[in-house]
Amino acid sequence: MAGAERRLDGAAARVLGRPARLGAPIRAAMETFEPQLITEVSKLAFSDPNVARLWYGESDLDTPDFVRAAAARALEQGHTRYTPTRGIPELRRAISAYLYRLHGREIGVERVTATSSGMNAIMLASQIVLEAGDNAVMVHPLWPNAPAAARIMGAEPRAVTLALENGRWRLDLERLFAATDARTRMIFVNSPNNPTGWVMSREEQITLLEFCRRRRIWIVADEVYQRLVYRAERAPSFLDIAEPEDPLFVVNSFSKAWAMTGWRLGWLVAPAALGDLLGELIQHNVSCAPAFVQPAGIAALERGEDFVAAMVAHCRAGRALVDARLTAMPRVRFSPPEGAFYAFFAVEGMQDSLAFAQRLVREARVGLAPGAAFGEGGEGFLRLCFAQAPEVLEGAMERLAKALA
Amino acid sequence: MAGAERRLDGAAARVLGRPARLGAPIRAAMETFEPQLITEVSKLAFSDPNVARLWYGESDLDTPDFVRAAAARALEQGHTRYTPTRGIPELRRAISAYLYRLHGREIGVERVTATSSGMNAIMLASQIVLEAGDNAVMVHPLWPNAPAAARIMGAEPRAVTLALENGRWRLDLERLFAATDARTRMIFVNSPNNPTGWVMSREEQITLLEFCRRRRIWIVADEVYQRLVYRAERAPSFLDIAEPEDPLFVVNSFSKAWAMTGWRLGWLVAPAALGDLLGELIQHNVSCAPAFVQPAGIAALERGEDFVAAMVAHCRAGRALVDARLTAMPRVRFSPPEGAFYAFFAVEGMQDSLAFAQRLVREARVGLAPGAAFGEGGEGFLRLCFAQAPEVLEGAMERLAKALA
Repeated sequence: MAGAERRLDGAAARVLGRPARLGAPIRAAMETFEPQLITEVSKLAFSDPNVARLWYGESDLDTPDFVRAAAARALEQGHTRYTPTRGIPELRRAISAYLYRLHGREIGVERVTATSSGMNAIMLASQIVLEAGDNAVMVHPLWPNAPAAARIMGAEPRAVTLALENGRWRLDLERLFAATDARTRMIFVNSPNNPTGWVMSREEQITLLEFCRRRRIWIVADEVYQRLVYRAERAPSFLDIAEPEDPLFVVNSFSKAWAMTGWRLGWLVAPAALGDLLGELIQHNVSCAPAFVQPAGIAALERGEDFVAAMVAHCRAGRALVDARLTAMPRVRFSPPEGAFYAFFAVEGMQDSLAFAQRLVREARVGLAPGAAFGEGGEGFLRLCFAQAPEVLEGAMERLAKALA
Repeated sequence: MAGAERRLDGAAARVLGRPARLGAPIRAAMETFEPQLITEVSKLAFSDPNVARLWYGESDLDTPDFVRAAAARALEQGHTRYTPTRGIPELRRAISAYLYRLHGREIGVERVTATSSGMNAIMLASQIVLEAGDNAVMVHPLWPNAPAAARIMGAEPRAVTLALENGRWRLDLERLFAATDARTRMIFVNSPNNPTGWVMSREEQITLLEFCRRRRIWIVADEVYQRLVYRAERAPSFLDIAEPEDPLFVVNSFSKAWAMTGWRLGWLVAPAALGDLLGELIQHNVSCAPAFVQPAGIAALERGEDFVAAMVAHCRAGRALVDARLTAMPRVRFSPPEGAFYAFFAVEGMQDSLAFAQRLVREARVGLAPGAAFGEGGEGFLRLCFAQAPEVLEGAMERLAKALA
């Protein structure tokens, strides 16, 4: 994520907005809107090349040449006008075909909507399902944007935390179910999980899906790290087990597996009956993804498998390097993740991960995300993105080892 | 504005969503969400080249070469990663400098936020200001997306209609003020107006701004057609008269003046105190505009004046041609617009502009937007985009004349 934004100082540092200085009122929910704490670290050195920038969910690999060439060609050919709101038919068909190759099941184009990023897909699902008085139960620690989308819609995000047992993160489904009530409209699960690397099992997915069918609660499954796993070909997906009419949104993105973070392109699989409504909502959010970006998505899906394999290998190497170094640090508790591309590790004696991460930038030139940024269950940890070149990681780990000595 | 989406049939044609078929409930506001009626026409012939496509707010001019080249160069150079959420500093500075040239007043970068389209800017302002129980008063007829954004946020859009007097559209400010109450959080004004071409005068802007200062109501001024006027250099802008801390959002876009509809890039001028909050909200909507799209915006602002002049000339020629033809049609009542690039004309005896526009597509191969798409005050009219080549307009007007004979 990004943003070299200025922040308020002192005691008000975690609350945005200054209603006293505004000429008219804003929503109470906006007056107390909390800043994304990763930015609170990265703003210290947004463009300082001497800091190892391991804070964002972004690899150092460039978007592959053939993907960039597809966009350049579309620009050349004049693809610079409005497209259908849910994406050009060719892109929706390419996503549908990709999903068939991956899951061996027909996910028809009527269920597929191209979106302006995975984040945008989460916002669209939130706009459909959530309003004031509703709540959304979300497995934590979690990238803070899904809870933020719920708050923007006036709803209450509720955290159910993973437990770390014998070095493995585990979800207690009974606790998850117990956190729901009559106003629960959504259960949000990000697997593989950012930041922990936890991967939900097939059996857990089946149990959750059955619960949500019975209780008529939407599952929003954020599967953007689906391809980035280290003990299997890909992570289990709700698309493997769900029926077309199930109360399920599956969010995906081109950002991670194809190194396309700056393109803002993703997709959403939803019941076909919501297709028209999604088309309308997109019109009122961004109208469509840029016309020449969409053909690049087609190229990524149709010719990107070698690149995805290279990305996984890149991450696997980074994971091994970081594992070896973190394991050797006496104050650190860490076990390598099953999926995604983050090391999420605990530091003994660390009380305030934000202050700690800020100090690491200044004193060790290592840029990490504070665990507190990921909500409940996150404090006491730091997140490091290892989808980076070995030399960058080596240097950063060297300095980190000294700082944590 | 696009979308070849399927719609429900028959009596339910104006209501989206099919809760009965869904596995879990959606918001009541979403069950009754109305489709954008322009799409109801364009879907009849989304890709039929024989239909004159005058339904969207889009010219037939390609995005200028130097703008496309700037994006291609950025792609080549690897600008494919996350950017700051409010846009790269170079783009925000370019917008600020452009505004200084246009208005002769300093609009500092701290007030400028790059957005993923003008529409996205409207949605962001709505997220900050509107929630359930609130209302937003909007000058109509109006492109339906601003009222839709209010509904998405759970708020009530209220229409105050322009009156057509002696061939000129006029706003009764007293009626506008009378439509507000204690829960009015926003007054939305689009000037130059889509679809009528009405332009708000400097005096009206001053009166409205004073009212909103006193009553502590936000003005959202959609000024995307600011450069497309026919009796002046540009339309009066709230930026000419407002102070930095006024309760004012000014929305603009690259789409219209620079022929960049498919790029999804715009900007928002807001009080500096809302800058951090805007940065947060963008992160939770789309994270940022695509990295390589932003340098294209800089090119448009810094080297686009000749193109804007050519666009205005193109529109002026289309306006004259359409004026001559419409004026000669006995059933049509029309006077040429002061701004924007639409002819909004009344047809004698037309009861249902949607059915009428659908028939025109089928029988005359002329694609127009039905007046009913623009809410209160729109029925009885049709909207035609004249930012098109003379030969396209000539053929369409010829067929329209026969159909209306």
